[in-house]
Amino acid sequence: MRQLSTIAGLRDFTRDAPRPLGLVPTMGALHAGHLALVAAARAECASVVATIFVNPTQFGPAEDLARYPRPLAEDLAALEAAGVAAAFVPSVEEMFPAGAATTIHMDGPALPLEGEARPGHFDGVATVVAKLLLEVGPDRAYFGQKDGQQLAVVRRLAADLDMPVTIVAVPTVREADGLAVSSRNAYLSAEQREAAPVLYRALAATRDRFRAGAQARAELEAGCRALLAQQPLFDAVDYVAAVDPDTMEPWAGAGPAMLAAAVRMGDVRLIDNVLME
Amino acid sequence: MRQLSTIAGLRDFTRDAPRPLGLVPTMGALHAGHLALVAAARAECASVVATIFVNPTQFGPAEDLARYPRPLAEDLAALEAAGVAAAFVPSVEEMFPAGAATTIHMDGPALPLEGEARPGHFDGVATVVAKLLLEVGPDRAYFGQKDGQQLAVVRRLAADLDMPVTIVAVPTVREADGLAVSSRNAYLSAEQREAAPVLYRALAATRDRFRAGAQARAELEAGCRALLAQQPLFDAVDYVAAVDPDTMEPWAGAGPAMLAAAVRMGDVRLIDNVLME
Repeated sequence: MRQLSTIAGLRDFTRDAPRPLGLVPTMGALHAGHLALVAAARAECASVVATIFVNPTQFGPAEDLARYPRPLAEDLAALEAAGVAAAFVPSVEEMFPAGAATTIHMDGPALPLEGEARPGHFDGVATVVAKLLLEVGPDRAYFGQKDGQQLAVVRRLAADLDMPVTIVAVPTVREADGLAVSSRNAYLSAEQREAAPVLYRALAATRDRFRAGAQARAELEAGCRALLAQQPLFDAVDYVAAVDPDTMEPWAGAGPAMLAAAVRMGDVRLIDNVLME
Repeated sequence: MRQLSTIAGLRDFTRDAPRPLGLVPTMGALHAGHLALVAAARAECASVVATIFVNPTQFGPAEDLARYPRPLAEDLAALEAAGVAAAFVPSVEEMFPAGAATTIHMDGPALPLEGEARPGHFDGVATVVAKLLLEVGPDRAYFGQKDGQQLAVVRRLAADLDMPVTIVAVPTVREADGLAVSSRNAYLSAEQREAAPVLYRALAATRDRFRAGAQARAELEAGCRALLAQQPLFDAVDYVAAVDPDTMEPWAGAGPAMLAAAVRMGDVRLIDNVLME
């Protein structure tokens, strides 16, 4: 596996890389969810570039940028073992040199849910994802369904900017008890970790009700919220929303829906979602 | 010459077009300035794509979108005669379909001068230029020095988004009396047209003073402004500014400078600039 830190070196690599070329963008601290992205890319692409970049522009001022884990040696070993052809690990200065003046602003699917909870977050995501897509020039790029709104935003971004890339969604990887694998799970105390799977269980139970015919949006959301309220270690429920998976607008009662929720346990914020159709 | 109206058709064309591929983006109403861009592209590229798209997102609500000239047949004939391989003439719906949610926001060189006079203008320019660059995928793209701040914004955009394209500046084409060729010159009355060259003459005279050693920024700007004030048909001088040609920040007293000015005659606004070094 090649390890690259400059955009120029990356371009030298991708120029001759076998196609189709897959991109797996990550912020490092790799877990089974990231490795599922790599596995999906490996299955469909002749070569895979993974990127590790903790993007400061997608963290809010009160968020966990400084404490975000950066286990680089382990990450590189995991990517190499997973068959990645090149790991691109740029510095902040390489990605955002002095004088940079361009921000991609997303409306539409970026506005509700996480967009309300984290102002500017999706602009930061869109800007860095656009840069990575243009630096790597992949045929396919892989994103987790776990961050379902991010997936919708990235799809919108790639479509709106006419990028010749296919955005591929990879199903959420879960622990045995249902908790979605996430770097932020490591911040949970043992007690919080034991309580956390209630988030997925509430979503899954609501999906079961949906499949059984209960398809009134307000009722589904209220039912899910009631299930979450039963877990006293959830200090707050930021939102529970059944939305159109592409637009993130409230589900209109027909077609597929994404049921998404965000809860807080102390200063840890967990998000998860299930697709319902 | 191929005439294309869809992005899919454009991609089919560019896939097999001889490289290097040059892009000349225009809003139509072609004049000698545009044809100089085409000539520069033809001299350096194996094939040239010109685009004609009157981009609504770069016009302000009080600006001249509706009356902007659209002489399509003449434009296509001029492009064909100039040796363009393909003209891309998309509809507004093709470029900005329902649901589009992405805007590129520019700070830095987009903020002063035209950025102050035309809020949102350069965000509209950057968004459509990014789309055209990604739709066409050129090796080189050609922009006029006449719109010197736009040139700086596009260079910043391409650099910040890591687009693998070279932005080429083409010198301003002028009428015999010095007036920069511009689509908007057609809006001038005969009397205004006769007065208009004072804009360039003031810039050129100030450049002469600069070359003769007068290199205090405030003095240069004030001198140019005084020359413009002598033309009573200039109803307002929006700005006169000696700036860094890349950042558009006030010229720091060393290195190249761009002396830019904007004047208004009735409801017509004229801009021009000269490079000084």
